[in-house]
Amino acid sequence: MTESMVHTVAVVGTGVIGRSWAQLFARKGCETRLYDRDPEQLAKAVSWIDEDLEHRTVEGEFAADVVAAMRSRISLHDSLHLAVQGADYVQESGPEQLEVKQALYRELDMAAAPAAILASSTSALDMTAIAEGLEGAGRCIVAHPTNPPHVIPVVEILPGKGTTDDVLRQTCTFMKRIGQTPVVLSEYVPGFLLNRMQAALIREAMSLVQRGVADVDAIDAVIRDGLGLRWALMGPFGVGDTNADGGVRDYFTGYRDAYLALMDDLGETPGIDDEFVEHLGVKTDLMQGGAPRAEVLAWRDRMVEKIRRLKAEDPNPGRE
Amino acid sequence: MTESMVHTVAVVGTGVIGRSWAQLFARKGCETRLYDRDPEQLAKAVSWIDEDLEHRTVEGEFAADVVAAMRSRISLHDSLHLAVQGADYVQESGPEQLEVKQALYRELDMAAAPAAILASSTSALDMTAIAEGLEGAGRCIVAHPTNPPHVIPVVEILPGKGTTDDVLRQTCTFMKRIGQTPVVLSEYVPGFLLNRMQAALIREAMSLVQRGVADVDAIDAVIRDGLGLRWALMGPFGVGDTNADGGVRDYFTGYRDAYLALMDDLGETPGIDDEFVEHLGVKTDLMQGGAPRAEVLAWRDRMVEKIRRLKAEDPNPGRE
Repeated sequence: MTESMVHTVAVVGTGVIGRSWAQLFARKGCETRLYDRDPEQLAKAVSWIDEDLEHRTVEGEFAADVVAAMRSRISLHDSLHLAVQGADYVQESGPEQLEVKQALYRELDMAAAPAAILASSTSALDMTAIAEGLEGAGRCIVAHPTNPPHVIPVVEILPGKGTTDDVLRQTCTFMKRIGQTPVVLSEYVPGFLLNRMQAALIREAMSLVQRGVADVDAIDAVIRDGLGLRWALMGPFGVGDTNADGGVRDYFTGYRDAYLALMDDLGETPGIDDEFVEHLGVKTDLMQGGAPRAEVLAWRDRMVEKIRRLKAEDPNPGRE
Repeated sequence: MTESMVHTVAVVGTGVIGRSWAQLFARKGCETRLYDRDPEQLAKAVSWIDEDLEHRTVEGEFAADVVAAMRSRISLHDSLHLAVQGADYVQESGPEQLEVKQALYRELDMAAAPAAILASSTSALDMTAIAEGLEGAGRCIVAHPTNPPHVIPVVEILPGKGTTDDVLRQTCTFMKRIGQTPVVLSEYVPGFLLNRMQAALIREAMSLVQRGVADVDAIDAVIRDGLGLRWALMGPFGVGDTNADGGVRDYFTGYRDAYLALMDDLGETPGIDDEFVEHLGVKTDLMQGGAPRAEVLAWRDRMVEKIRRLKAEDPNPGRE
């Protein structure tokens, strides 16, 4: 397989993640073949894609003929074998159970063309285990998106022990071509990078609520009107680099002792019992103000796309 | 003191934080009186304010006469007593040493009008300790901004044991009036909310780098093109509420075991020795691409203001 050869993509499993991938692939010009073993799921995915594209047309993001072209690139298949035939890249978003995935990859490895990449959306499993004993283990890789991938660009890329360097490189190239940000992990850790850092922040957030230091809305305000405004632009190392005159070295030397003391003082893993979850529910309902959840979700996705456009128009002067 | 009575503000200590406060107060219509015991610091603060306002005029954010009006509200004083005379609110941003602050608050308590609020920008100290034994302890409060306050709106508000409810309420009212987001802590914890959550995320980020799972740029990409895009809009509880069909209850029930396992698996406090700091420095330099730091900083602040405008124009449908 040579550069930029991915033209036809198969989306296997069309739940919330799979359908979002499908929309992204079709938007970026790929022939997109959809399969789900549950025909109802497949029908729901197509309705969602149609609604979303319709909405983007109404909003003026795409002209009607552009949307028609995107839509024409999407085809539905009621057989896994037919769906992956001719695909250069398979994005699998099936159930998160090792045995189910292993069986699925045996099927995929037989059905897909020998040069096709088999990528999994798994957020939890190790490709080394999924592809164990598989003849085509070299072409299997984890490409874990952030929900939803048609809105949020980060994709965590994790090769298994058998994955070839070429497949790793091609997967990253393809992801960049469709506007995603591939991020490579060199070894498997539970939760990968994103969910680990999210869990670290949530652990402290929950601990502060349980200790009674601050309530749900205060915690969230500190993120949405504080840390999150910087983190939408730079990660913790980039932020540190701009937070001291001498850059990141100066920052982590000057605040070394303060950070070490604070890190040692952070809360332990809190209990998350039903009573606490209900407390979070009541306070979050108050904070969110009772708008229908779908409306808040649509707002979030719309706003993320607007922030991405701001960044595309006015990129970090160092990196772009 | 009744609602909205803050008209004249004294800024005591005009380093990076104090000068940013001064610009914000003047922009929002307050008579702003500046004092620093180091005359050079005071001169530097005024130059910075002039440059920043000049830049905003060139960029078309403010007309020249508006900027002239803002500038005319700023006055410089070479005596603490004269600076705080007639001030309704004092924002102190002096050195972070308890004895220094205690001495300063004794002076402030004598010099300021009896109804004036004395607020500290401290990120580390407890107002209970600063104001101990002070006659006016009831009017002393922590108002810890996020750097820089003229760009980032969150202000952590922490009353001391002696602080009156009225002073707490008035401080929050004033902060809201000038466009900040006051967030109230009910008790002192080291690092308050923001630096604790930041330390929690950085602890895991450093641990992942030290374990060799991913490098600086990968970690930062996960934040700036992933988690940070959502966190610019909602905190962890709001995000959880939109990440499951049944909302935050559904989210933290469905993922309870996954989160608990992940939280228990997070890294311990890493060592931050000079060698590691240098590694971060080398990798961060590569990531930031060699643009002058001042340019990246200006980009960050400009972009944060753009994101805030997006949010003001199209607010969360539940909360606004």
